[in-house]
Amino acid sequence: MAASIRAEVITIGDEILFGQITDTNTQWIGTELTNIGVRVTRKSSVGDQADAILAILTEAHQRADIIILTGGLGPTKDDITKQTLCRYFNTELVLNERALAFVTAFFERRGRALTDINRTQAFLPANATYIENNWGTAPGMWIGHEGRVYVSLPGVPFEMKNLMSHAILPRLKAHFNPPVIKHKIIRTVGIGESFLAERIEAWEDALPAHIRLAYLPSFGGVKLRLTATGNDEALLDQQLEARAAEVLPLIEKHVYGYGDDEIEAVVGRMLQEQNLSLGIAESCTGGHVSATITKVPGVSACFWGSIVSYSNMVKVKQLGVRQETLDNFGAVSEQTIIEMAEGVRRALDTEIGIATSGIAGPGGGTDEKPVGTIWIACATPQRTVTRLLKLGPYREQNIQLTTMYVLNLLREELLSLSNKRTNQ
Amino acid sequence: MAASIRAEVITIGDEILFGQITDTNTQWIGTELTNIGVRVTRKSSVGDQADAILAILTEAHQRADIIILTGGLGPTKDDITKQTLCRYFNTELVLNERALAFVTAFFERRGRALTDINRTQAFLPANATYIENNWGTAPGMWIGHEGRVYVSLPGVPFEMKNLMSHAILPRLKAHFNPPVIKHKIIRTVGIGESFLAERIEAWEDALPAHIRLAYLPSFGGVKLRLTATGNDEALLDQQLEARAAEVLPLIEKHVYGYGDDEIEAVVGRMLQEQNLSLGIAESCTGGHVSATITKVPGVSACFWGSIVSYSNMVKVKQLGVRQETLDNFGAVSEQTIIEMAEGVRRALDTEIGIATSGIAGPGGGTDEKPVGTIWIACATPQRTVTRLLKLGPYREQNIQLTTMYVLNLLREELLSLSNKRTNQ
Repeated sequence: MAASIRAEVITIGDEILFGQITDTNTQWIGTELTNIGVRVTRKSSVGDQADAILAILTEAHQRADIIILTGGLGPTKDDITKQTLCRYFNTELVLNERALAFVTAFFERRGRALTDINRTQAFLPANATYIENNWGTAPGMWIGHEGRVYVSLPGVPFEMKNLMSHAILPRLKAHFNPPVIKHKIIRTVGIGESFLAERIEAWEDALPAHIRLAYLPSFGGVKLRLTATGNDEALLDQQLEARAAEVLPLIEKHVYGYGDDEIEAVVGRMLQEQNLSLGIAESCTGGHVSATITKVPGVSACFWGSIVSYSNMVKVKQLGVRQETLDNFGAVSEQTIIEMAEGVRRALDTEIGIATSGIAGPGGGTDEKPVGTIWIACATPQRTVTRLLKLGPYREQNIQLTTMYVLNLLREELLSLSNKRTNQ
Repeated sequence: MAASIRAEVITIGDEILFGQITDTNTQWIGTELTNIGVRVTRKSSVGDQADAILAILTEAHQRADIIILTGGLGPTKDDITKQTLCRYFNTELVLNERALAFVTAFFERRGRALTDINRTQAFLPANATYIENNWGTAPGMWIGHEGRVYVSLPGVPFEMKNLMSHAILPRLKAHFNPPVIKHKIIRTVGIGESFLAERIEAWEDALPAHIRLAYLPSFGGVKLRLTATGNDEALLDQQLEARAAEVLPLIEKHVYGYGDDEIEAVVGRMLQEQNLSLGIAESCTGGHVSATITKVPGVSACFWGSIVSYSNMVKVKQLGVRQETLDNFGAVSEQTIIEMAEGVRRALDTEIGIATSGIAGPGGGTDEKPVGTIWIACATPQRTVTRLLKLGPYREQNIQLTTMYVLNLLREELLSLSNKRTNQ
């Protein structure tokens, strides 16, 4: 196995030092570099001052093989990364024709003329390789220097992530040929980390030394990440698949997908495979379930629409919830959630209807129905099933958890529908 | 003005370098130090290795007046911060009686006996001042050394924040009497960073040396952050307000708020002030606009609901869009967006209706209407206004930008409505 490749990640910008923005970049970069077998040995943030940037570059040069910088590439006065790189490498900014053509086209597509300020974005240090940024106007840069690789990327997470994934990470792999690290991620929902750990303890203890397990909890679900290190990619994949096959029977009903498979993509696929249409009625989630399902490209083939019934009037008028149901049981009740799920099926002429209604907080709680009391339902041609969620006091968390759970309820119902079909 | 006090924040732990946990501590510490007038000049993360910790301590000593360390204070073998501090200061761990009494009481309260492992938490470097941690078992430490102050805190955010707020920050203020630093953030929408910069260039160039400007871009908007440094808080506030008042006329129609004011909170407030109700019709944004507005607690007072009309059938049946409009002009057209915005007003009996319809991508584009072609509209009792957006090829970005722009269109219409009122 190759000796370990050391990387440092440097973020540039006063706004990070001052705590004005959340730095999500370094965690993401740390994960990605670790995934390709590069060892991240330090992360640093410095301000938009040349001396601070020069100092960290000099230090990092002595410690690391890969130095990744993000930020300070904007067209405005406070962005000085490029100029400072020139000072550090003792070179100058030169016009890059490809960069100029790209930035010109970028603004043309938006029907805007190229301003002088934007034109400066086409100037790069003479020793830099231009890395096209299809997601913004600041270019990526790759600079080889005294056996190190310097990478400079924009700080906008969306642009940085795309540049890393599509250009930089493959290039780093090819350049440094780090040891092979393979991952297998098993995505579970509806079971807590500790219960999951208990259930698979024997399996986990039996894992060989070169395969490590990590529990990655996220809203409503836990991801199991198996990481295998070695140098034979095919063999590692084979071993990971074998271990995954062993654990699956222990947790089958909780597993909804693998790798990057989000639950909304899974249910979107299931709906299309079964040629079923979906309508959504949302109260406490206020559109978040719909926004989540529409993240899936092409979902319009099976997702017809939603009614966000934030007021009771909308529940009655658009979903056909009966006024006496609301009067007798309240908007947050099993009776109401059933009428919402069945009502949206009728209103939008869909085969499936799912619904949410609850008290997301911070206000609106009572002794009988405290904040976090949330009903969800799924109505199919066969039946309507409901669940009562008892969540916590935090509004955003409740909305995200409810979204995850109602999509999982939909997944379970689609599963039983397809099983019925195959059993017929 | 007092010379600026420089601080470095150092987080210790492999899990941060490898991206396994999100580091929320350094942003919080950066904000708090900035607010008391301490200048954060660098943030660093190193792993749980003594040599890495010794190296960063030696560097920071040369650059900073305050060195704040978090993490590595647990009782387990991989936590080595205290031992490493002893090596760095050439001293040894000694039993601290107050720490021992505290940790003993901590476990007594929980009905548990003190284990040997927990007893180790009462040992501190001989030169450290014990800072009681009422929120956990790992003590805080304050070490004065060669004119610098070293602070070591547990990495658990809840414990770290309480220790900082109640003990460390007041102590730092008293010790360093730092200069006052004040911020003024102006939030803009609908104008790119470079165009904004050109428009306010003269104003920016005229800023005095003690007031700095930073551009903080985010989806659909750019935040202007003015930072003033001095020692007279009232005077700085006055100067910031004066500068903000100067720039406002240049960018007035783009400014939607100040400080932490998100646009959804701004429009939510305006709706409630004007006692107007809102309904939303969403096609390409698929519920994201509704999910965004419902982030605002208490918005149910003015937000009645939405119809996510992903399919044309729902546009016709629920929103009353005419079939011939769809046949003649298509779902992505000015005619359709007008009927959607006016239709949702009728359907949900609201005073205001906003609507989105476009091609979010990645598929569905044509030469005539490429991906990123998106119509938005706002219908009020007075009139219906529309905008055509020409965005990029990326689905999620298009959805987020459209959400920002349609909420801003709503803001502009609410503004003109309230102006009309006041002019009557």
